[in-house]
Amino acid sequence: MTRIAYVNGRYMAQARAAVHIEDRGFQFADSVYEVCAVKDGILIDEQWHFERLERSLEQLGINVPLSSQALGIVYREVLRRNRLSDAIVYCQVTRGQAPRDHAFPTSSLPPTVVITAKAIDAAAVAARRSEGVAVVTRPDERWARCDIKSTGLLANVLAKQSARNAGAHEAWLLDADGNITEGTSTNAWIVTKAGTLVTRQLDARILGGVTRLALLECARSTELQVEERAFSRSEAMNAAEAFSSASTVGALPVVQIDQTPISDGIPGPITQKLNGLYHGR
Amino acid sequence: MTRIAYVNGRYMAQARAAVHIEDRGFQFADSVYEVCAVKDGILIDEQWHFERLERSLEQLGINVPLSSQALGIVYREVLRRNRLSDAIVYCQVTRGQAPRDHAFPTSSLPPTVVITAKAIDAAAVAARRSEGVAVVTRPDERWARCDIKSTGLLANVLAKQSARNAGAHEAWLLDADGNITEGTSTNAWIVTKAGTLVTRQLDARILGGVTRLALLECARSTELQVEERAFSRSEAMNAAEAFSSASTVGALPVVQIDQTPISDGIPGPITQKLNGLYHGR
Repeated sequence: MTRIAYVNGRYMAQARAAVHIEDRGFQFADSVYEVCAVKDGILIDEQWHFERLERSLEQLGINVPLSSQALGIVYREVLRRNRLSDAIVYCQVTRGQAPRDHAFPTSSLPPTVVITAKAIDAAAVAARRSEGVAVVTRPDERWARCDIKSTGLLANVLAKQSARNAGAHEAWLLDADGNITEGTSTNAWIVTKAGTLVTRQLDARILGGVTRLALLECARSTELQVEERAFSRSEAMNAAEAFSSASTVGALPVVQIDQTPISDGIPGPITQKLNGLYHGR
Repeated sequence: MTRIAYVNGRYMAQARAAVHIEDRGFQFADSVYEVCAVKDGILIDEQWHFERLERSLEQLGINVPLSSQALGIVYREVLRRNRLSDAIVYCQVTRGQAPRDHAFPTSSLPPTVVITAKAIDAAAVAARRSEGVAVVTRPDERWARCDIKSTGLLANVLAKQSARNAGAHEAWLLDADGNITEGTSTNAWIVTKAGTLVTRQLDARILGGVTRLALLECARSTELQVEERAFSRSEAMNAAEAFSSASTVGALPVVQIDQTPISDGIPGPITQKLNGLYHGR
């Protein structure tokens, strides 16, 4: 089946979907994106993704190219044309195409909009969720505005590759104080031995994850104590449980950090309970 | 005249020169670049640009797509097809096209290579060089590997735009210690009241500029004292002279920092002497 992508108002064969070489997304990473999970045809937390996209665009002074409503229609049409109901939808918006110059173009540009979808292997994700994964810690070498979901992802790419080279699934990033900010494409969480759920507070050092927000809502619907604060690598290694969160997976148990098992090295009960609540919404 | 670009082995009309939406340069800023000035048909410091390109690629584990010799041939052919002899040549190399995943693709990819050229307005550059420019200081919000000439330039874009909004030509970036690292697309220099030429030492916080290197060679051919070390915003504001360096311009006098004139607010004699040596090589 021919995969179909949406680029600047047109649906086309993904194999020939392209952007101009002077697209500012290509030359400057002057561009933002969103990844939304789709389950049984339902776009999970769709409105939160659209709200975050608009915030990222606003922070960069890029015009919002389509309303949330129009984007929702395009997302569904891309899914329909690719006959997908368990999938992820990827959306990238750039400042547009202009002769190369660091400063913003002086005349108003139409942003470039690219939307694609691909099937996810739900069984593989579920297996990973039931087994848990290993993470390694790496220095956080990213820029100072990680709250913007930009495509300036080279530091994330290098840390993720470094994790894979070490046989791990993900890298958790360490700031200059030895605290974990987040993963390269996930938020980082621990459950303390006292049973408190901890994830880093929102600021410019981390992305405000949509799944982070959803899991916080799930946790607050229970008796769980929740703290949004920094936690160190050693606190994580001595935690009762640890997990990563991302739209594609929910809460992914972390059973090992830097080759050291977390507790008894198997997914913890609070992580599993949160996953149940998250996927049962 | 139709502008011609080189993309992956082919010369084509630049208007339709494109890269795939899953090019890693577009989706991850997993990509590096070089900008080389051309004067009277001569590629200025060509070998140094090619050496730096190879270093950037090596740091990222991207295969070198073409030898320096082959690249030199393509640069000249792009110039010839565009009938340019005073110009800049832009070269971008990405890790290539692959289904989106942060980690490197597991199979070896052909890198994407894009080469374009455009005329420079030599009179406008010369005028700017004789008048000098204003700079403003802004926080350095870039990633920790500025020694790699990657296209992850969003922080540079935002700082440059902030400078333009303030009526300045460039932003000089301040690290957490209040020292100037470099400009958004230039290296930063001062001449102290004692007559010492100062520019920041090479490390991961700045790009090793080709023109920086050329100017250091020029300075060392004279009696000038030269120091490669960090300098603060206040040292810069109290300097005898200040300038920015870039391949497109040489040494560009900075006559104002954050609205405060440097010395008497006109280009300084040592800057002009260095420019003479640089352009006279």
